[in-house]
Amino acid sequence: MNGPLTVGERLVSGNLGEDIFAFAAEIYPICRSITGKGVRKTLQAIRSHINLELHEVPTGTEIFDWAVPREWNVREAYIRDQRGRKIVDFATSNLHLMSYSVPVHRWVSLAELKQHVYTLPDQPDLIPYRTSYYAENWAFCMPHRLLESLEDERYEVVIYTEFSDGSLSYGEYLHKGETDDEFLLSAHICHPSLANDNCSGVALLTHLAKRMAGLRTRHSFRFLFAPGTIGAITWLARNEDHVKHIKHGLVVSMVGDGGGPTYKKSRRGDAKIDRVLTHSLRHCGLTPTILEFSPYGYDERQYCSPGFNLPVGLFQRSQFGGVPQYHTSADNLDFIAPDHLAQSYRLIAETIDIVENDMVYRNTNPKCEPQLGRRGLYGAIGGDKDAVAANMAMLWILNLSDGIHSLLDIAERANLPFGLVRKTAQLLHRNGLLTPYGDVDPSKS
Amino acid sequence: MNGPLTVGERLVSGNLGEDIFAFAAEIYPICRSITGKGVRKTLQAIRSHINLELHEVPTGTEIFDWAVPREWNVREAYIRDQRGRKIVDFATSNLHLMSYSVPVHRWVSLAELKQHVYTLPDQPDLIPYRTSYYAENWAFCMPHRLLESLEDERYEVVIYTEFSDGSLSYGEYLHKGETDDEFLLSAHICHPSLANDNCSGVALLTHLAKRMAGLRTRHSFRFLFAPGTIGAITWLARNEDHVKHIKHGLVVSMVGDGGGPTYKKSRRGDAKIDRVLTHSLRHCGLTPTILEFSPYGYDERQYCSPGFNLPVGLFQRSQFGGVPQYHTSADNLDFIAPDHLAQSYRLIAETIDIVENDMVYRNTNPKCEPQLGRRGLYGAIGGDKDAVAANMAMLWILNLSDGIHSLLDIAERANLPFGLVRKTAQLLHRNGLLTPYGDVDPSKS
Amino acid sequence: MNGPLTVGERLVSGNLGEDIFAFAAEIYPICRSITGKGVRKTLQAIRSHINLELHEVPTGTEIFDWAVPREWNVREAYIRDQRGRKIVDFATSNLHLMSYSVPVHRWVSLAELKQHVYTLPDQPDLIPYRTSYYAENWAFCMPHRLLESLEDERYEVVIYTEFSDGSLSYGEYLHKGETDDEFLLSAHICHPSLANDNCSGVALLTHLAKRMAGLRTRHSFRFLFAPGTIGAITWLARNEDHVKHIKHGLVVSMVGDGGGPTYKKSRRGDAKIDRVLTHSLRHCGLTPTILEFSPYGYDERQYCSPGFNLPVGLFQRSQFGGVPQYHTSADNLDFIAPDHLAQSYRLIAETIDIVENDMVYRNTNPKCEPQLGRRGLYGAIGGDKDAVAANMAMLWILNLSDGIHSLLDIAERANLPFGLVRKTAQLLHRNGLLTPYGDVDPSKS
Repeated sequence: MNGPLTVGERLVSGNLGEDIFAFAAEIYPICRSITGKGVRKTLQAIRSHINLELHEVPTGTEIFDWAVPREWNVREAYIRDQRGRKIVDFATSNLHLMSYSVPVHRWVSLAELKQHVYTLPDQPDLIPYRTSYYAENWAFCMPHRLLESLEDERYEVVIYTEFSDGSLSYGEYLHKGETDDEFLLSAHICHPSLANDNCSGVALLTHLAKRMAGLRTRHSFRFLFAPGTIGAITWLARNEDHVKHIKHGLVVSMVGDGGGPTYKKSRRGDAKIDRVLTHSLRHCGLTPTILEFSPYGYDERQYCSPGFNLPVGLFQRSQFGGVPQYHTSADNLDFIAPDHLAQSYRLIAETIDIVENDMVYRNTNPKCEPQLGRRGLYGAIGGDKDAVAANMAMLWILNLSDGIHSLLDIAERANLPFGLVRKTAQLLHRNGLLTPYGDVDPSKS
Repeated sequence: MNGPLTVGERLVSGNLGEDIFAFAAEIYPICRSITGKGVRKTLQAIRSHINLELHEVPTGTEIFDWAVPREWNVREAYIRDQRGRKIVDFATSNLHLMSYSVPVHRWVSLAELKQHVYTLPDQPDLIPYRTSYYAENWAFCMPHRLLESLEDERYEVVIYTEFSDGSLSYGEYLHKGETDDEFLLSAHICHPSLANDNCSGVALLTHLAKRMAGLRTRHSFRFLFAPGTIGAITWLARNEDHVKHIKHGLVVSMVGDGGGPTYKKSRRGDAKIDRVLTHSLRHCGLTPTILEFSPYGYDERQYCSPGFNLPVGLFQRSQFGGVPQYHTSADNLDFIAPDHLAQSYRLIAETIDIVENDMVYRNTNPKCEPQLGRRGLYGAIGGDKDAVAANMAMLWILNLSDGIHSLLDIAERANLPFGLVRKTAQLLHRNGLLTPYGDVDPSKS
Repeated sequence: MNGPLTVGERLVSGNLGEDIFAFAAEIYPICRSITGKGVRKTLQAIRSHINLELHEVPTGTEIFDWAVPREWNVREAYIRDQRGRKIVDFATSNLHLMSYSVPVHRWVSLAELKQHVYTLPDQPDLIPYRTSYYAENWAFCMPHRLLESLEDERYEVVIYTEFSDGSLSYGEYLHKGETDDEFLLSAHICHPSLANDNCSGVALLTHLAKRMAGLRTRHSFRFLFAPGTIGAITWLARNEDHVKHIKHGLVVSMVGDGGGPTYKKSRRGDAKIDRVLTHSLRHCGLTPTILEFSPYGYDERQYCSPGFNLPVGLFQRSQFGGVPQYHTSADNLDFIAPDHLAQSYRLIAETIDIVENDMVYRNTNPKCEPQLGRRGLYGAIGGDKDAVAANMAMLWILNLSDGIHSLLDIAERANLPFGLVRKTAQLLHRNGLLTPYGDVDPSKS
């Protein structure tokens, strides 16, 4: 019953999980923030796989209600006790320094130090991740047990950071399809050494773009690697006239753990992307969670702001904030796994497959059922289970292919996986029982 | 409070259960298939009760994607062992021979015989029912225990069946009402000795048509007795221009067991017939199941094909395929009972009653409640339970009779049985508190 | 974050619960019926708090399907045994006499007496409340134990009641707002000594009207104190052309017990008042019940009759008829409490607050989020719970303030209390992030 491979099927090639994991591991040690050398280094790493277009937007550039901030880079940062021992050191873990900490070098009492230290009392062995992009401040992050063990003495605080008029960096890659209708895939690249959040998303999208090269697609696919919030806002500000082409979109983050999958709908709530993810996650065999839109989360906040209202949802494994590893040093390479990365990749590939292949057929024998038996299409007599499902798919497709219902409509109504419905429709088409009636208008939700 | 008897009430007359059971028992022994003498004999039996119009459609007639098949008749069929004893014999049970088996007469090994035998290993004492209308083959059906007891020897297989250019037979009966709006009632007559599936449906509809004779009705009622699938397709092909008159319809099958009742909605899902059955089954005091449409089942598959999309649902007791007796020799006269047949009959009569009597009234005192007390209409003070329900019915009818809501709308909203709402509305009408505002447009779903 | 006090906040002043309870206790002993001196005395008591406009509608005046009944007043009523002892006496409890009992003075046997006695066998110590407004009759109500204790002797029945051509009395008070759009608040005043039903409602609305005096409001507020059924019908008949101004309304009854709260929707089901109560009760911290409309209950029956179909719902604590005290002598001052009255008052004040303050804003930075941090609006980092909710409110308001969604729409979608949403919107407005876009059309449901 199989026809030629579809886009979604072609995308699933090679050692998916291992390749993605390896790339996540490669970029994991880099110290990223919303600007600076770490972001550029990460973009260069992506560029070793795909022909990424790099953008640098100067400090001070106005972007809607915001301005591009000064560039921030770290030379070194540590706390030393009176005996000269380093208590914490940025060189050991880039989580130790609050992102965008201002430079400081002085001796402080334990009491004063504590006003500049973040810990997690409930998770006393972990280093929290903290930022202060827009309020000038400095702080260290450390395990709570370490803080508790400090003697009441004076400590030397050294933070050599540089703020400079530089630029904000992001990269984008466009896979050109047959039409200008775009599918946006967006991952934030502003977090330092947090494996799931979001080395996983960056690595997954890099390998998706890589495997897409050379494939003919109906849609164009735009991959965006940018710092969270300020990066998405910058891109939107510079592409204000272009976004009308975005017909579907996903923010991809935290896709390496074994939870979920989780999909948070776009602000529209009934966009095609919302229907596609709702359908495919229901049939994925895992324990999916489908969330209504809310204005808190990742860059869907910007894409779904009322002035844009783009059909962009959020794809994750465990729900954002819902795991103890979230924004701590426990979000390391042990927290993500090749199998989970491959699973996440396949779910996104399936999403692309549905968006690419959904279409409307018309039953060529709309009055009464056609005689499937004489065409050898009734495989189910005596009936193994797959054959039963295939027969039901045939009957549903014939019954609903009235020039109105698309394959996705049929899959939803029949509660059958899109892939089975698509394959069965192609079989019926080859047997002359269906004629293509038209694409689904991609702007139709 | 009672007015003149309604159509639905007049239909419930005589020894319903006994009469229907007796007729089901009369036609039970006949060997039916999709064509042949058994079908004609069954139609003649129906004709002894109602003035059935008989149709014969010649073999080879093209009907949509199909052609009328050759006529099939059985002279004899049996398996004999080496000592000349008949192992199974069509004369004992017509289920023993797979329907549309081709003729054969030869000696075969046990191994070869087994390739032409159907049994039910999980129900080893029952004979299954099997057909092969469109693939040329032969087979016997027998209890699994019998097959297991057979010695490893040679067997004489004798099947004297005849295929001939003949015709496909069906019968229809039209009860002419005041309008051309039709209510289609359809039962398949192609199964051999299976009591519930569908001697029960054939007998129920025969007695419904018989009792309807002489009654004035608003709708016309068309009763169709035809072989499953090919018969319905043939009728649709020959009545393509006529079906626009069908405003409501029910496929009636397996109505003699004590399960359900079950109603499967038409493809439209919100047709009047769907609303009526949903309403009346909810108030029937049994344990009903309401199913959404699916394209697998009985002849609603054809009536609800996209080119027709008629408002025809399926009425059954136990859900199709949901009982162990289904398509086995256990679907015999012990499986059906007069009480269940009468119950099923009453539910269909009530359906007809609602369809015939639904209408829109207008409250003649739409501003504030009318003074029911001075008209002696408040029966409920101190209040027995029926009087309370009648009072609520009064209040709901007055509140919703605004020229928009029909009696069925009101019964649904008030969660009260249609019959109570109708009777109460007539009482209010007699007291000048309602005026008829118009029929419900029967094409309105 | 707080701005100036809103109407709803200003209404909550003084010793709410005590004041309302005291007034309920003051009017509790008065013998009210649908006409007569008790109603007038009650209206005068209300008038000592607010400038009530009194209306007298003569007996016999035609009002839709009804006529104003004769006025009924009681001089005395009792049963005396042969030794001259009063068995029951109207002077002890006005519940002892069925309302609108005709005069009678004679000796009767116990058997005859029993035909004119109502008791509650299941609540043998309580006196039931009974009326017979439109059927001429007489009866006494008494505890079942008392009836059972009576000797089989003759009893002197004395009922000195007067029927006269007088008038039906009701009172109304209009708080004039900036617009003619009216909010109707209606309480029945026809029940004798039943504390919850409806001294509580009368007292609550009296104090609400009193505290509203002097406040500037957008809507006009009409307070109606009238006998149940006939009073509401009379008012509607005399104000037929005026009711188009009623944009919201509540029937207020039984608001002093600790149950519920309960809201029964208007006939429209999706009127603004229905949405407001559904929202505010969901956030009230009690155990609310939201009921769909039904045509049985209080005066919403008349306001929601099909010829008016006003957006008027019913507000109560325990659901009507759902407590054993209902319509018995146990509905006394022990059954209501200042705390519950204050709670009920606050819920109605909050309803008014929402209706008065709902409006549509427009986000002045609709493209991407505005930078809340540099405006000091992000209070939640590190985050106490209230600050988290306030941040979410900010994000929701900015996301949905597109010129379409009102604050109530946003509160519903965000599942946050209206008060928080309103205060947060005012804060954003003061920071230039929102501009008022227009009032919510009060006729919009």
